[in-house]
Amino acid sequence: MSKNIAIIATHGFEESELKSPKEHLEKQGWNVDIVSPETGKIKAWAEKNWGPEYEVNKTLDQASPSDYDALVVPGGVLNPDKLRANESALKFVKTFFEQKKPVGAICHGPQILIDAQVVEGREMTSVKNISTDLKNAGANWRDEEVVVDAGLVTSRTPKDLPAFNAKLVEEINEGKHREQHA
Amino acid sequence: MSKNIAIIATHGFEESELKSPKEHLEKQGWNVDIVSPETGKIKAWAEKNWGPEYEVNKTLDQASPSDYDALVVPGGVLNPDKLRANESALKFVKTFFEQKKPVGAICHGPQILIDAQVVEGREMTSVKNISTDLKNAGANWRDEEVVVDAGLVTSRTPKDLPAFNAKLVEEINEGKHREQHA
Repeated sequence: MSKNIAIIATHGFEESELKSPKEHLEKQGWNVDIVSPETGKIKAWAEKNWGPEYEVNKTLDQASPSDYDALVVPGGVLNPDKLRANESALKFVKTFFEQKKPVGAICHGPQILIDAQVVEGREMTSVKNISTDLKNAGANWRDEEVVVDAGLVTSRTPKDLPAFNAKLVEEINEGKHREQHA
Repeated sequence: MSKNIAIIATHGFEESELKSPKEHLEKQGWNVDIVSPETGKIKAWAEKNWGPEYEVNKTLDQASPSDYDALVVPGGVLNPDKLRANESALKFVKTFFEQKKPVGAICHGPQILIDAQVVEGREMTSVKNISTDLKNAGANWRDEEVVVDAGLVTSRTPKDLPAFNAKLVEEINEGKHREQHA
């Protein structure tokens, strides 16, 4: 069955954390849209410096969570720091949880989930640097390559992408998760 | 009376948030050292891209909080994200609080204070993007250009630097604060 998946990102997303899940999900025959507060193109961060630009498929104004089966939240240090202060981005993210749809977040991506107020009581991982913030927000943080909790898939760093991508596909194939919630 | 002040930073510090306090404190006739986990030089971040390099005066291994009268913690998105995951940096920062010495932190700088476990119950501000993390860590977060709480001076963004610098000098002139604590 074909699926429609949104990746939310803005300038400074870690390139591999968008590119790798996007390619892996597209290999399943699924459509993947880059959704952003920005129009036109957004600039990747490639490990230690700015990287290439990626085309935005839908702006946040144009996109509705109801049009998508799942959401992916890449990291990068700069990208989630911007999105977590954007009310439209937080509402977009939170709605996937309310609609019980699978959400994957990697590295610093979970910072956005803190401000979307969806981490309390959830089993999660992230890059170590933000683990204190996730624990303080009520998440049960674990140091594992991928943690799956009722449709919520999280990983630590680009090294975990193979495990992250595989679990994302599993959860998206399962569809809505009764225990996924905002 | 001459004072000796440490600024802790690594690659990706916001240039104005190091340069402006450094110059302002030096104008008082005080010595200011850039202290870093790195040796040699560290690269500034100048608003939207990498900026010039600044010389490290002491590495964390060479510097002791006992040699300093106060500490300044600049922001930048990349710099505090690295330092908050560095145990030596966290110990260095926490010791200033234990020694009841003035500490100034601006923008994303307070992220380091979260991991140094020194924000609970303190009156503070920061860049808005990390306000949820500070509240979750127990700080009483306020949206003001500068907040002073018994030797702890915090500000939001580079626009607040004049107010930040002025309060820093006041608190450093007052010396140790009985109610400053780790």
